[in-house]
Amino acid sequence: MDTRPIGVFDSGVGGLTVVKQVMKVMPHEHIVYFGDTARVPYGTKSKDAVTKYSLQNVRFLQSKDVKAIIVACNTASSNSLEAMRAATDIPIFGVVVPGVEAAVRATQNQKVGVIGTAATVRSGAYESMIRQKNPDIAVYSKACPLFVPLAEEGWTDNDISRLTAQQYLNELLSKDIDTLVLGCTHYPLLKRCIGTTVGERVKLVDPAKATARQVRDFLAQQNQLNENETEGERRFYLSDTTSMFQALCQKALKHPYTAQIIDIETY
Amino acid sequence: MDTRPIGVFDSGVGGLTVVKQVMKVMPHEHIVYFGDTARVPYGTKSKDAVTKYSLQNVRFLQSKDVKAIIVACNTASSNSLEAMRAATDIPIFGVVVPGVEAAVRATQNQKVGVIGTAATVRSGAYESMIRQKNPDIAVYSKACPLFVPLAEEGWTDNDISRLTAQQYLNELLSKDIDTLVLGCTHYPLLKRCIGTTVGERVKLVDPAKATARQVRDFLAQQNQLNENETEGERRFYLSDTTSMFQALCQKALKHPYTAQIIDIETY
Repeated sequence: MDTRPIGVFDSGVGGLTVVKQVMKVMPHEHIVYFGDTARVPYGTKSKDAVTKYSLQNVRFLQSKDVKAIIVACNTASSNSLEAMRAATDIPIFGVVVPGVEAAVRATQNQKVGVIGTAATVRSGAYESMIRQKNPDIAVYSKACPLFVPLAEEGWTDNDISRLTAQQYLNELLSKDIDTLVLGCTHYPLLKRCIGTTVGERVKLVDPAKATARQVRDFLAQQNQLNENETEGERRFYLSDTTSMFQALCQKALKHPYTAQIIDIETY
Repeated sequence: MDTRPIGVFDSGVGGLTVVKQVMKVMPHEHIVYFGDTARVPYGTKSKDAVTKYSLQNVRFLQSKDVKAIIVACNTASSNSLEAMRAATDIPIFGVVVPGVEAAVRATQNQKVGVIGTAATVRSGAYESMIRQKNPDIAVYSKACPLFVPLAEEGWTDNDISRLTAQQYLNELLSKDIDTLVLGCTHYPLLKRCIGTTVGERVKLVDPAKATARQVRDFLAQQNQLNENETEGERRFYLSDTTSMFQALCQKALKHPYTAQIIDIETY
């Protein structure tokens, strides 16, 4: 067995929704989380910038002696996974592949919608990987840049979020999708509003759940699960202070964790 | 006379609305613009992060031999002006003081509203400077984090922007303000929507106009205006590629300028 922690990074605090799933599936694992709150968001930035930041984040987690790294950020998973894998021997797990597999399993009419940041949609990662698994599936993607600031403002289910959801999603609904991938860590916070807009007929896929299970299966296979019976230790690092960390810890993890601030540009 | 360029920086491309005013008031001046598109937005980040970024931006503009620096970004003007002035001999002009002076002149009932990013509002800079000029003026501030992504999405005057404006501004209107400071470079792009929401009775103050005039007066006084009759040269630098630069150049400057990408973290 391997008692080293699992590293998780995200462009900000949205990745705590991924930590939630990891804690659920692997309660005994130690977790080191890094949120790049000094440079958030990644979703509006270029591939080069996202890759540069992602490599720094990997080097930081490496310095914490992690046994695996989960890239909670869809933008970094879509744009920079290969660059990260080339830079380290630590196994790196993005959220896109597990999200793709869950979507392929979920769809019955072979019409899948994907929503995410501008950079995630531009990368075409979900689209090409879904088609790779099953060329018969039609994929319709839509960037929803207002969803992250709406979630951060706490406007998760009011008139403004509902109108915004309609504006973004009506186009996908007109394509008759039966499955919608929530391709950004913040979007599960808007799940109710998105669910009401698309209706019960459309299944919502949260890649975080599938990712946590994939990592558990990998560690089990490698005989690297932490088999201690005690609850894992969770440590949180941010590149800038933010009140949103506390709010989201409470909302997603039901626990008032504290975070340490580090200078990510030195990594 | 002094033919060196004027430097302007902003957290992103919103500062082009300030460049527009500088070009209008001083058409013969050369301008070097830097937009920190790799680390935008500043408005949700801590004072320390904003100051660190601002000092790097000043060092970059210094390397371009500018004779004065305009801090187009309200967040940097509110949080980091003293730190920048301590770090260089080049005269530095923020947008807050000129905005304050314009607001103090504009109000008749001594009730002024200020809208801006979370960091600008948190700094209390507008509030304390308006009260310094005239302690009888009551100032009501409100952070409007959704306005920047709305402007960037191009939703400047639709149902969603109008509902958002109402949600943010009703509280200020209930205070009977007769003047509203647009304390963020992006907000002039939403001027029509904001104007409709607050009604004709409320004067909108755009600090960019007052800032451009203040810099012109200073340079004239120092005998540093560029007195050549030819149109000034404008050079644009960004820390990351973005399609929004082109869109905003067209919208604000009516000209398809190109931008050069630089690595701001090396400054």
